[in-house]
Amino acid sequence: MVQKSPHENVYAVIDLGSNSFHMLIAKHMAGGVHTIGRVKRKVRLAAGLDEQNLLSEEAMQRGWECLSLFAERLQDIPAGNIRIVATATLRLATNANVFKLRAEEILGHPISIISGEEEARSIYKGVAHTSACQGRQLVVDIGGASTEIVIGQGFEAHLYHSLNMGCVTYLERYFSDGALSEANFAAATAAAHSVVAPFATQYKTAGWELAIGASGTVQAIQEIFAALGLDELLTLDKLQAIRKQAIQFKSIEQLELPGLSEERRLVFVSGLAILIALFEALQIERMGLAGGALREGVLYSMIDQLNQADIRKRTLDGFMSRYHVDTSQAARVFEICKILLKQLEAPMQFDFQNACDLLSAAASMHEIGLVVDYKSYHQHSAYILKHTGMPGYSRVQKQMVVALVGNHRLDVEESLLSQFGNHQGLIELLVRILRVAVILSMRRQDDVLPDLYITATEPETLTLTLPGDWLHEHPLMRSELESEAGYQEKAGWILKIERD
Amino acid sequence: MVQKSPHENVYAVIDLGSNSFHMLIAKHMAGGVHTIGRVKRKVRLAAGLDEQNLLSEEAMQRGWECLSLFAERLQDIPAGNIRIVATATLRLATNANVFKLRAEEILGHPISIISGEEEARSIYKGVAHTSACQGRQLVVDIGGASTEIVIGQGFEAHLYHSLNMGCVTYLERYFSDGALSEANFAAATAAAHSVVAPFATQYKTAGWELAIGASGTVQAIQEIFAALGLDELLTLDKLQAIRKQAIQFKSIEQLELPGLSEERRLVFVSGLAILIALFEALQIERMGLAGGALREGVLYSMIDQLNQADIRKRTLDGFMSRYHVDTSQAARVFEICKILLKQLEAPMQFDFQNACDLLSAAASMHEIGLVVDYKSYHQHSAYILKHTGMPGYSRVQKQMVVALVGNHRLDVEESLLSQFGNHQGLIELLVRILRVAVILSMRRQDDVLPDLYITATEPETLTLTLPGDWLHEHPLMRSELESEAGYQEKAGWILKIERD
Repeated sequence: MVQKSPHENVYAVIDLGSNSFHMLIAKHMAGGVHTIGRVKRKVRLAAGLDEQNLLSEEAMQRGWECLSLFAERLQDIPAGNIRIVATATLRLATNANVFKLRAEEILGHPISIISGEEEARSIYKGVAHTSACQGRQLVVDIGGASTEIVIGQGFEAHLYHSLNMGCVTYLERYFSDGALSEANFAAATAAAHSVVAPFATQYKTAGWELAIGASGTVQAIQEIFAALGLDELLTLDKLQAIRKQAIQFKSIEQLELPGLSEERRLVFVSGLAILIALFEALQIERMGLAGGALREGVLYSMIDQLNQADIRKRTLDGFMSRYHVDTSQAARVFEICKILLKQLEAPMQFDFQNACDLLSAAASMHEIGLVVDYKSYHQHSAYILKHTGMPGYSRVQKQMVVALVGNHRLDVEESLLSQFGNHQGLIELLVRILRVAVILSMRRQDDVLPDLYITATEPETLTLTLPGDWLHEHPLMRSELESEAGYQEKAGWILKIERD
Repeated sequence: MVQKSPHENVYAVIDLGSNSFHMLIAKHMAGGVHTIGRVKRKVRLAAGLDEQNLLSEEAMQRGWECLSLFAERLQDIPAGNIRIVATATLRLATNANVFKLRAEEILGHPISIISGEEEARSIYKGVAHTSACQGRQLVVDIGGASTEIVIGQGFEAHLYHSLNMGCVTYLERYFSDGALSEANFAAATAAAHSVVAPFATQYKTAGWELAIGASGTVQAIQEIFAALGLDELLTLDKLQAIRKQAIQFKSIEQLELPGLSEERRLVFVSGLAILIALFEALQIERMGLAGGALREGVLYSMIDQLNQADIRKRTLDGFMSRYHVDTSQAARVFEICKILLKQLEAPMQFDFQNACDLLSAAASMHEIGLVVDYKSYHQHSAYILKHTGMPGYSRVQKQMVVALVGNHRLDVEESLLSQFGNHQGLIELLVRILRVAVILSMRRQDDVLPDLYITATEPETLTLTLPGDWLHEHPLMRSELESEAGYQEKAGWILKIERD
């Protein structure tokens, strides 16, 4: 009899990067993958490469020491659930085998030194599984010794390259005197330009809708934006402003930007120079941060059943399973939302599919907060969503779903609605539809719904018409709909309940 | 074949109170009971009682209308999962049967008019299942037409009475002119004193450790305290201060206290007068708010398997099941905590059992936030706990568990620790023990633990001694313990790691 291991659902991915080594431990359960451990060490392997691409003994030693830490944690994980990949520095190092042999001995598992193309494809996959993943996307990952650029759609990378530049190698090459000078920056940026130039036209021609960055550099920049109270999207103007601010510190040693961690400081400016060159060369307008990259790509490749084409469905199903959601209730609420939405499409003129997608997500998630407490459960649902990744949904879509979920009952929280610019009207409409649908589903039964008519007679006024008989026989829902009209009035909207 | 109903785990309790009618809908799942719906209507039935205790036609009509709302929701719930109880007003009304017959017709289910003693016992049970439940407790519930006082321990009520006074009947009797005068207050308080006087000695002699209030009056007072930024515990001084403030508004009509809801305004002052009399007569020093009362008592009586003697175990098991906690990891962390705690007991002089209980709860719950995200998961664990009831734990104990859970890794959040007065030292010690135990369990394996020695050499200094061999063979844990010493240093503590 085969004994079932308590760790059979536990997976480990180790990534021997040029800047740091990472170990990701994840558990596959309740319809999703949960990270249960992370270990990261700044090994800065790339700094050990000399001009002949010979990896120094010291750098190898640092690497092996780190791996002996990782090995401790690997012992308990089934061999089939472990993947170890190495990237640019070990691709380049002429003596990579010396490192690899000893490393495999320490780890007790084989290491794959993957090609730049394979790395790019895996990064894309990791981004696709953990981020927005809508339409065509450009993914950029600045590593220690290589930078991957990819254009893809869904889970497929269509165009991908691994470029020979990275934040550790560029630090060594262009900031070796430690000076934060215009000259050093200019040299680094110019070098990056010449590396990306051969591919620029091809990428610009292919085009993309969304640019996503997946590396420590992009994350560090977002943390600086956050510390400065700026919006988290990267733009060329904002990157240039940070470059200017950085130069004022004269040396990397003295560099101190709000939100910049001590750990990232050393390789920050070289990464920034590369990123600026990419923004310029590819004419990137805006860039967001990915939820994962290489390690996640490798992890998701191991877990077959997660490679379901519809990532949004997987996200919603995972949430509902994890938080014990009454799925038939979620489906019921969504069905009513659709009935109402359909009738408002013509008069209100909105993108039906998009509205439907948002309501589908909100209906699936609105009750997750019940796991915490019935009191204010809509706020708990919003808290949980806000702090969790929602693969398949963009940053703004996630904010919209949070706004819907957090407003689906009781008083309307205006602050959640005022952040959507010219989409505010749509979000308000969807909030109102969702609230009515939740009331009409309160019995958690399928057979109680009458014919529903909803019309938008003038801006801010919705009229819901229900059969008189039905209203008579359903005094509780009638009473709840009347209270709802009161809540909507407080929010500045009019909801009329009429009998047919 | 019997078809399994989708509602078979759904329960409903209706409470026909003298002030309002409530319906509670709850689902029994994932090791606990979750409220999934509440409906409440201010029927103010007691206001319809005349001096001959004849219930007026209008009052009955209000009640029946409300019940026709409730009936709508009841249809889908198995008859065996429904309990409907009526209290003081229907006990008193000489024509209660007229009301009851029609009400049962509307609801389609029998109504039990329960005795005051049964009501008191059920209230006690509801409080015991949802609140602190430690040692002897005094439970007070001010209803619309009766007030229950109970002393009990665990799930057992030892001494219980239902007193003939309530916030609706006292409003009618002592504030019928609507004036907020000293005279009206004095008359109401004096009347309440004379009702409670015959029992005062008996209750004071029996004694209690914790007083808990379980009614809208107590909740409204806590909401006022919260709006004023005051500590939530009720004391006689604070009640008198609110009484003085209320009097300044001259009439109930004009009464406006911060945090006082419009819904409660009318019956607030009569409830306050009764509460003040109870504080004075029974010499209550402090009172907290219960998590539930009559409805919860009736609900828990229906669900047999929840009547487990160890309410804390039920609470912790329920949490772990609901949030998919790795229970063997929780047990492992707690075992290590106990080993460390035992060694520190003699030198540090603390209540071992209490410390053990807190660490048991913290070890069980520290990973619940993983369900949200790995990033900052200790903060998510703390958020969830903060917003959830923890039956079996007092308010302060819950705060302590939140402080432990929210500080079990990464930077120490001092603000979570500074609220415990002279218990702060103990909580800090427990935080430090828990953090070390979490690191020593990071492999999630039972067989990796060496002999551990911990000593407290001087205040703020803990020395953890581990076998040299073990440290050599476990470089990852050694490295994590070294980082931990850094985190403790930042918090102003010294953690020394020594090799044996």
